[in-house]
Amino acid sequence: MVATAVMENATRRTRSGRPLRGERAAKAVGVPYIVRNIPTYDILSEENLQKIERTADRILAEVGIEFRDDPVAVEHWKRAGAKVEGVLVRFEPGMLREIVSTAPAEFTQHARNPEHNVRIGGKNVVFSPAYGSPFVMDLDKGRRYGTLDDFQNFIKLAQSSPWLHHSGGTICEPVDVPVNKRHLDMVYSHVKYSDRAFMGSITAEDRAEDSIDMARILFGADFVDQNCVILGNVNVNSPLVWDGTMTKSLRAYARANQAAVIVPFILGGAMGPVTNAGAIAQSFAETLAGCALTQLERKGAPVIFGNFLSSMSLRSGSPTFGTPEPAIGSMVVGQLARRLHLPLRCAGNFSNSKLPDGQAMQEGLMSMMSAVHCGANFILHSAGFLDGLLAMSYEKFVMDADLCGALHSYLAGVTVDDNTLAMDAFLQVGPGSHFLGCDHTMRNYQTAFWDSALSDNEPFEKWSDEGGSTDIATRANRQWKKTLAEYEAPPLDIAVDEALCDYVTRRKAAMADAWY
Amino acid sequence: MVATAVMENATRRTRSGRPLRGERAAKAVGVPYIVRNIPTYDILSEENLQKIERTADRILAEVGIEFRDDPVAVEHWKRAGAKVEGVLVRFEPGMLREIVSTAPAEFTQHARNPEHNVRIGGKNVVFSPAYGSPFVMDLDKGRRYGTLDDFQNFIKLAQSSPWLHHSGGTICEPVDVPVNKRHLDMVYSHVKYSDRAFMGSITAEDRAEDSIDMARILFGADFVDQNCVILGNVNVNSPLVWDGTMTKSLRAYARANQAAVIVPFILGGAMGPVTNAGAIAQSFAETLAGCALTQLERKGAPVIFGNFLSSMSLRSGSPTFGTPEPAIGSMVVGQLARRLHLPLRCAGNFSNSKLPDGQAMQEGLMSMMSAVHCGANFILHSAGFLDGLLAMSYEKFVMDADLCGALHSYLAGVTVDDNTLAMDAFLQVGPGSHFLGCDHTMRNYQTAFWDSALSDNEPFEKWSDEGGSTDIATRANRQWKKTLAEYEAPPLDIAVDEALCDYVTRRKAAMADAWY
Repeated sequence: MVATAVMENATRRTRSGRPLRGERAAKAVGVPYIVRNIPTYDILSEENLQKIERTADRILAEVGIEFRDDPVAVEHWKRAGAKVEGVLVRFEPGMLREIVSTAPAEFTQHARNPEHNVRIGGKNVVFSPAYGSPFVMDLDKGRRYGTLDDFQNFIKLAQSSPWLHHSGGTICEPVDVPVNKRHLDMVYSHVKYSDRAFMGSITAEDRAEDSIDMARILFGADFVDQNCVILGNVNVNSPLVWDGTMTKSLRAYARANQAAVIVPFILGGAMGPVTNAGAIAQSFAETLAGCALTQLERKGAPVIFGNFLSSMSLRSGSPTFGTPEPAIGSMVVGQLARRLHLPLRCAGNFSNSKLPDGQAMQEGLMSMMSAVHCGANFILHSAGFLDGLLAMSYEKFVMDADLCGALHSYLAGVTVDDNTLAMDAFLQVGPGSHFLGCDHTMRNYQTAFWDSALSDNEPFEKWSDEGGSTDIATRANRQWKKTLAEYEAPPLDIAVDEALCDYVTRRKAAMADAWY
Repeated sequence: MVATAVMENATRRTRSGRPLRGERAAKAVGVPYIVRNIPTYDILSEENLQKIERTADRILAEVGIEFRDDPVAVEHWKRAGAKVEGVLVRFEPGMLREIVSTAPAEFTQHARNPEHNVRIGGKNVVFSPAYGSPFVMDLDKGRRYGTLDDFQNFIKLAQSSPWLHHSGGTICEPVDVPVNKRHLDMVYSHVKYSDRAFMGSITAEDRAEDSIDMARILFGADFVDQNCVILGNVNVNSPLVWDGTMTKSLRAYARANQAAVIVPFILGGAMGPVTNAGAIAQSFAETLAGCALTQLERKGAPVIFGNFLSSMSLRSGSPTFGTPEPAIGSMVVGQLARRLHLPLRCAGNFSNSKLPDGQAMQEGLMSMMSAVHCGANFILHSAGFLDGLLAMSYEKFVMDADLCGALHSYLAGVTVDDNTLAMDAFLQVGPGSHFLGCDHTMRNYQTAFWDSALSDNEPFEKWSDEGGSTDIATRANRQWKKTLAEYEAPPLDIAVDEALCDYVTRRKAAMADAWY
């Protein structure tokens, strides 16, 4: 009864006051990014951090990193004073730290809608969709290869969520488009169906340059030269190899003053040591070298210190995701990245489950909490990731986006002031009564608690009788269909749209289809 | 291929060396409790902690707490120098802190198998099953009232898990036994079907005393007088009321030198302020008063500083569980409890979902991670909790127990030493190769990573073709049935068994059945 009174009052207040969180969600009005109000969770001592850094220094000085198929990169290293033998490059301790010191600790990535600009680095947290799956899946049709339609659907779902901040990059592979032309459709789709910041291609240097050229059409060439408007996520070929395809793309982004995200993917026991400390040291060394290379290409270019640690199942030899060791490792990587004063990409919402089930959400949250705790600034793979990144799930995408909403509240921490300490409420209510209708509650309840749009919080009888006894995946299935049905594209300047279409048409015409 | 070689080698090594983690799981040989190797996550500043403490002091001094229907408790407060008006008791700042200073910061709860003794307080973490549901559920039969059979099944599942450390208390209500006799069957079942530490009844003073008497039969009266062998979980009737039923049970445990767990359940906006800081201050005040009362009953009696924060759905007025605000609140409560040097019970594996689905595991893990991060020493509700604690789920129980296994690895943190830094591996492997067969991997892989017994980590094709495309709840369904089928009761001295049965029979004969 009292709860009902509060609810009625809530409805009345909402009409005149600021909207309820549920309404905000429906209108997809969130914040452009989060400014964290809780500290990072620093789990390792100074002494142990230094041991890891010293091991990274030894790896760089004694083992070295190969830079294959990119003579320009090797020349950069020679000029910088590294020891070069063929493609193997070795670095004196301290050299790479010195080089990366010219990269900004924090920068803005511009979106075509300035209200969606994101600030990357410092205390800022940006949630971006998962990236790179060849397959998509939903509860109706199961798993199948992703298409451009799917790709655009996920952009629309991200754009519609108030809890994601970024449109992402290769959300899924549109395999119905030739491999060498996909990037054109992908970049165009991000611009067309979203007004948020996005990522370009990195799978070949000319694709990176196409991506950046399209950004120049959107933002203007001069603006792009002075501002970050596109990210490129480049991978190390661990252990200790930088492939020419990647360094050429890395350099293309840096050259254009755009931010490369430098990411080793280390499956412990395969591409790196099976022990966490060693894998972290390797990851640190590999990323540090990539970050430094961006500065040799263009001093002051923005760069993001990235990381992707994974573990292995003893029983099958398969990679495992969302397990405790990489979660712990992420926290250490975060501590190390902050000592370099570089923006951090770390962890995400990882799972190896094939379905949006309990395993998926447990693994995803363990991984996502580590991203949040480690101080990651750009959290790629925040939504949709299933099957060890082989499949983007429609249901998990909206479940994860909802979780990202909860993490907005988590990262807000606890406000401690006279209002939240509520002494007036204690004096008003006293022992043995309740706070449902008191002044303090009426003043604060609208913003007090995260209220998930997908979780069921009804009494059992209402859930079973009126709600159809659904699980969250079933509710998510309804949710993404409803969101797509209601989606409206953000307005795009017609001249820009035409110029982009012209660019895509012209570039496609210049290439034969390649399917691998 | 290489992975297969590692696996084959693993099998060989296992025969001669120490067992794989999977085998350990099968044999239910874990550790008796965890000694955490990661720091607590302290999110609030000293200044803000003091503000909360000062608010708690003001609540205690200006509003006070009612101690209803327990004249002995009121007399205790009078003698201790509190301001008493009828049942309302007010406390000068600092008074309760002074009183609780005689409680131990850490103590051992003894199990009938000494190998399962648990150490509560300090850096120790004990996982205990969920507590108090009237219903049970499984995927085959759905939800129904719990019975003594169910109760015993959950004891068997807990006893069989290497990742739980404690047998718990009222795991579910055995509603087929009269209310006034249940405690006898519950305590007997814990002793009979588990050799781990357990909890007794608190629903009436004589039931608390029966529970302790049965512990005396098991351990010997002198031993019980000097050692903790049973816990009683007592609840505050928030806001700011201690009910006589609870304080009488609290005093019964303290009098016997047994540990009461002092727990306010605060649903923000109903039993406490809707803002976190105020709810924390209230919770702190209520728990502090309960802890102090144990010391007035028997100075030096062990006591656990407990806490249960919850939030509310704006849309329905229902309580919500596993949401971000209570998770954050737990971290603050942990900081406050450590300043009192008292063992902490905080958070758990909470969910409002009606099924063991993605919602259940996401909410459960957010809550469980807060328990782990806040430094909780005794984590009640570690396994099985669904539907806002109205139902114990068989499937979620084994899923949660598996998660507790993962948390063993999480709490182990990162070991940083010459072996884990793996410099020998980098020198051996070099750039562009792999670590699958290297000496370092062979030396370390068996203990490197948590390997869940329930999560699917197979390739998609194997999962769908050979695995039947199961979700984790389906695998959990198979697992609990297999575990129950293979369960063997730990040996119990026949004379003790008979003495306990005699006690139960005699006590039951002395009471008429009561069903409410």
